[in-house]
Amino acid sequence: MSEEKLPSRAENFSEWYNQVVLRAELADYAPVRGCMVVRPYGWALWENIQASLDQRFKATGHVNAAFPMLIPKSFLEKEKEHVEGFSPELAVVTIGGGEVLEEPLIVRPTSETIIGHMYSKWIKSYRDLPVLINQWGNVVRWEMRTRLFLRTLEFYWQEGHTAHASYEEAEEETLRMLEVYTRFAIDDAAVPVLPGRKSDSERFAGAQRTYSIEAMMGDTRALQAGTSHNLGQNFAKAFDIRYLDPNNQLQYCWTTSWGLSTRFVGAIIMTHGDDQGLILPPRLAPIQIVVIPIFRNDEEKSVVMPIVERLKNELASFRLRVDDRSELTPGFKFNDWEMRGVPLRLEIGPKDVQNHTVMAARRDIPGKGGKTLLNQDQISSQVTTLLDNIQKSLLHRATTFRDEHIYNPKNYEEFKQAVTQGWAFSWWCGNAECEGQIKEETKATTRCMPMDQPEGKGTCIYCGEPAHEKVYFARAY
Amino acid sequence: MSEEKLPSRAENFSEWYNQVVLRAELADYAPVRGCMVVRPYGWALWENIQASLDQRFKATGHVNAAFPMLIPKSFLEKEKEHVEGFSPELAVVTIGGGEVLEEPLIVRPTSETIIGHMYSKWIKSYRDLPVLINQWGNVVRWEMRTRLFLRTLEFYWQEGHTAHASYEEAEEETLRMLEVYTRFAIDDAAVPVLPGRKSDSERFAGAQRTYSIEAMMGDTRALQAGTSHNLGQNFAKAFDIRYLDPNNQLQYCWTTSWGLSTRFVGAIIMTHGDDQGLILPPRLAPIQIVVIPIFRNDEEKSVVMPIVERLKNELASFRLRVDDRSELTPGFKFNDWEMRGVPLRLEIGPKDVQNHTVMAARRDIPGKGGKTLLNQDQISSQVTTLLDNIQKSLLHRATTFRDEHIYNPKNYEEFKQAVTQGWAFSWWCGNAECEGQIKEETKATTRCMPMDQPEGKGTCIYCGEPAHEKVYFARAY
Repeated sequence: MSEEKLPSRAENFSEWYNQVVLRAELADYAPVRGCMVVRPYGWALWENIQASLDQRFKATGHVNAAFPMLIPKSFLEKEKEHVEGFSPELAVVTIGGGEVLEEPLIVRPTSETIIGHMYSKWIKSYRDLPVLINQWGNVVRWEMRTRLFLRTLEFYWQEGHTAHASYEEAEEETLRMLEVYTRFAIDDAAVPVLPGRKSDSERFAGAQRTYSIEAMMGDTRALQAGTSHNLGQNFAKAFDIRYLDPNNQLQYCWTTSWGLSTRFVGAIIMTHGDDQGLILPPRLAPIQIVVIPIFRNDEEKSVVMPIVERLKNELASFRLRVDDRSELTPGFKFNDWEMRGVPLRLEIGPKDVQNHTVMAARRDIPGKGGKTLLNQDQISSQVTTLLDNIQKSLLHRATTFRDEHIYNPKNYEEFKQAVTQGWAFSWWCGNAECEGQIKEETKATTRCMPMDQPEGKGTCIYCGEPAHEKVYFARAY
Repeated sequence: MSEEKLPSRAENFSEWYNQVVLRAELADYAPVRGCMVVRPYGWALWENIQASLDQRFKATGHVNAAFPMLIPKSFLEKEKEHVEGFSPELAVVTIGGGEVLEEPLIVRPTSETIIGHMYSKWIKSYRDLPVLINQWGNVVRWEMRTRLFLRTLEFYWQEGHTAHASYEEAEEETLRMLEVYTRFAIDDAAVPVLPGRKSDSERFAGAQRTYSIEAMMGDTRALQAGTSHNLGQNFAKAFDIRYLDPNNQLQYCWTTSWGLSTRFVGAIIMTHGDDQGLILPPRLAPIQIVVIPIFRNDEEKSVVMPIVERLKNELASFRLRVDDRSELTPGFKFNDWEMRGVPLRLEIGPKDVQNHTVMAARRDIPGKGGKTLLNQDQISSQVTTLLDNIQKSLLHRATTFRDEHIYNPKNYEEFKQAVTQGWAFSWWCGNAECEGQIKEETKATTRCMPMDQPEGKGTCIYCGEPAHEKVYFARAY
């Protein structure tokens, strides 16, 4: 870890973000432009995200599988909107085993096409439906402006792909997975996302309806943190995914897809971090508790370490690290683990041994306010309470911040001001032209139309025509 | 599942294998030549393999990370043997985002080069060592003759990459991971592998020493099921991985790498399967127990199902599936789950309800010999014992089969006969020429030289010159 101070969030949020990612050793730049290396600490965080989501997917009846990374170029061309959306972003394998390939292969940017092809082979009858498959993997999109975790050429994600017998079932699945993402984000990541439907111009290429969860970052910008698509029959028709219904009639399936990626790591960093570095929600933190033994000489060490060992055993159900590096001062270690966002620090020195105490310091409340002197007895239940409180407090703080920065501008003048300071929640006529003008004039885009809409109707914030839905507008990552 | 009978193993082992993979729905052919789709049942098996290995890696101090899939072509050229070994097998990305790339990118066939590059950035001091990182991911090798799981263009694996301060530490790590693979194979997969060192001609491209675990398949052929490489300082010198030692002198690191892939799924199939299909070891089986309710009408159903539900709850700690598909007969279901290799089947019919019994059928012992009538009380402990016995019996059977098919031929004539019926364990002078001649004349290759060598010396089975090591020779996958 570098000793230099982080840039403050207020002064340069973007540079603060880059520095936190590098100094907390979450990720590093790869030698290929726009690619990243996810370092062990960052990957451990992603593994916890994976575990939380995977459990939720399985609880809703999904199974995992693995589809190939290389897709024949012709597959992408079978769905018109899909190929238009992804063509500019493709990485293409043209040589294999020393020979120029007859048909170039695409490194998957997403897997609707190859999975559609396989589903057309596997699905025969209504008895085979629904098919509920998820895949954890890597994809490549040739992005021009890249940022670690937020937008990289290669990224890691899960993509669910399901096939159903009716539009209603597909829509139900699409919304179920949106809810899974929402619960994961709020309950485990303490990121108070807002779920809703995307506008037509922000739809996934080839989808009939796209829903997303949208999160407000610490600089008030929006981050699309997960998406769920009702693909209608578009891919079923392009890939001939059909089933015999109970009346022995061939019908096209209705399909969905939904994904959440390593981008979410960026959402966690930019939602919770502070000027000292990362702050991780206890439920996902790779290290929930760091224990710093404090001693000045071997005699003190021989008094302190047995207690540290005992507490470590009593706290075995937590993800805990004892920092016993001998060449570093406690002060250095405090800063180091603050940078890495460990939610709770326990300090144990000779006085604590004498007094049967442990000093606990909360990462979310810097300084004395976050310190509590614990009794060594029943340490596990005290620590459970503290971690629960940190989890709740992170969510509360982020929710308050979000709500304080969502405005209801009365007119377009106020709107223009609002989107420089946060989000605007405004009536919109639904017309892509107004959406485009607003984007051009303010850089704010439609984020999503929440499910819970206010009663009644309004008038479009831009053109003044009648509007029947309110939408979040924001500058986005 | 098709109703047609499987080809028998004796009659056509290779076709038996292909059919089992497809009919048990472990995997399917992808539209790109040589690629596979791992279907949910196959992926669940792989996930159990992953969990077992991952736990063992973490217990030996390793952490996971993720390195990019795209590698600059020039990186591969930095280690001479490495590039020679992998050049013919590369998939090359030449176009990105619609533009021809200045430098083509290789889809990783393995990650020594890109990880070496990152280690040279990260490792500064002896305090940074050892670095013990593993990665789970996909790689691509442009193979010409492919078989599902055994050899595919894209496959899934883990690759560990470590850096150390001395040759001895690197060698210790290499052997530690060989032992991890051996324990996993024997204890969890019931595959009685033989660990040992590879001959120079069978070394990994760029390694100083390669070790492997070798397994005997049901047709007596050998399958290399995992490898561990001591890379010496080859990659450290090619990628400038250096550290300051305690005397402030710059030293090159010593590195290792080790990998085990979805090929291991093939090893499990070909070790345990029989003419009815797959047989999975209970510790790795995605479904350990299948429960088949048996009834002829709604009245019987209403009697049977409550007991099924109760037993299901009592067996909640097992991976259990109740097959309540109404359109299929019990006989069809028996065959179906036998094909899929579920270790234990429980049948419950109206008589069992009356008699407070459950019929248990072991997958590893077909017919009446494998059936036991259980009491419904304390079902969990009875099932635990049965599954333990199945696990042990699979290992015992495979070990017996292996040992019965390893020969100690007295001369080359006997040797030639031996390698058509199994493996030959023979003295070898260590000369690549003899090895090459044997391969040409018998198709048998050196598999590995086991750690435990017999006392004394012998004479080379081919040339008669003095030999100080015995080696396994076999025809291999």
